[in-house]
Amino acid sequence: MSVLKNTAELWRFDKGEALIPAGQNVDAVIVLAKGSVTNDRTWPNGKHMMTAVLRTHWPLKVHAVWDGLEAPYGLTAREECVAVFIPRSTFLGVVNNDVNLLTQVMTLICNQLRQEMIAVQMKTVFSLRCQLALYIFYHAQTSFHTITTDEMSAETVPMDVTQDEFAAMLGCSRQKVNRLMKEMEQEGIIHRRGRLVAIADPLLLMDAMEEDEPLSPELRAFIAEQRELILKKARRKTD
Amino acid sequence: MSVLKNTAELWRFDKGEALIPAGQNVDAVIVLAKGSVTNDRTWPNGKHMMTAVLRTHWPLKVHAVWDGLEAPYGLTAREECVAVFIPRSTFLGVVNNDVNLLTQVMTLICNQLRQEMIAVQMKTVFSLRCQLALYIFYHAQTSFHTITTDEMSAETVPMDVTQDEFAAMLGCSRQKVNRLMKEMEQEGIIHRRGRLVAIADPLLLMDAMEEDEPLSPELRAFIAEQRELILKKARRKTD
Repeated sequence: MSVLKNTAELWRFDKGEALIPAGQNVDAVIVLAKGSVTNDRTWPNGKHMMTAVLRTHWPLKVHAVWDGLEAPYGLTAREECVAVFIPRSTFLGVVNNDVNLLTQVMTLICNQLRQEMIAVQMKTVFSLRCQLALYIFYHAQTSFHTITTDEMSAETVPMDVTQDEFAAMLGCSRQKVNRLMKEMEQEGIIHRRGRLVAIADPLLLMDAMEEDEPLSPELRAFIAEQRELILKKARRKTD
Repeated sequence: MSVLKNTAELWRFDKGEALIPAGQNVDAVIVLAKGSVTNDRTWPNGKHMMTAVLRTHWPLKVHAVWDGLEAPYGLTAREECVAVFIPRSTFLGVVNNDVNLLTQVMTLICNQLRQEMIAVQMKTVFSLRCQLALYIFYHAQTSFHTITTDEMSAETVPMDVTQDEFAAMLGCSRQKVNRLMKEMEQEGIIHRRGRLVAIADPLLLMDAMEEDEPLSPELRAFIAEQRELILKKARRKTD
């Protein structure tokens, strides 16, 4: 811990600033203390994509710090951000040679690998509506760990992910996202208040997520639990 | 090594047989000794996809053996196959508690993570032609490690990947693949002999791969080296 205290640095970023650029080596594990960032990349010909909106308390760029190769995506501040930078040398010095920490890092990287595998499946065979439902589900979770339910909390959060951002994740136009979200709103799946998107009914969202294949029994039970919480909150508001 | 000898099993599979099914836990690391397999999945509604044709000597399903969760893809024999199954308990027993082996496994998993990330980028923003060029490039390599050139060999192999298989990787129709490959053949990028597809000119293939962004100087130099080898072989044949 004292090594961390002595070497970690705290940085502040304004909206639109790059915490790290895409396509370059990363010399620090980054943990957001405040704000949110997009994990994104823009190509020389103007094509642009992002994979996710990332929030506070998640260790970011661990894999690129581990293998020392270029990070395919950069991190861009979506609002004012404060981030802790843990230098690569500190991170590797602490983790290497410690079987327990190595195991934890491997679990984190495996988790990310599985998220990427799901993204590849989505993008190869799922409809845009199904993909959007999955992105909404993931971005409404408070936890970074969305592979197994035992690492997730039943709490969901309203998202401020914009239509432009969903379009950059889906690889389609903002107009298409707008049409899909309007449909979902009319069907009672989501509701929107200004920039915020919230899940109105997790079970209806699940229907859209399950277009190709039923989710696991664990995830289905978990989503039912999320629904109970949302209903309880709604009742408390009307009481 | 003696633990491996005592617990590993050798199995034979006919064309079309599943070495392991998709969507289930995997209880062994698999290494093909003979033949080739597809890494694939079919959904209840008939949708089908694959990620790659996998060949001999590559350790397969390591990440799923490591984290103990379901493998999103199964392995299906494309021809008669012989495979070594190393039981999960043996693998974890040898790897856990050994910092060097853990580090090697982590590097393998990081490598796979990067391949998935590239696939996500391809599928979000690249044209089908550019994606097909990348798939052809990867499948013509003799090495499993296609992230850094220092782990690759300059030798390329003619592929027997079918149009149906490319279609399952790209998420498009076989007809579309056929049109794209015909175009590439006319442009001198590839040539076809029966089922086999070979790279005719690596530099022309590179042009198609670089649609969005120049490759790294290392990869460009490496591809030039592959071209030299191909030209040398062609000269030897005409001599």
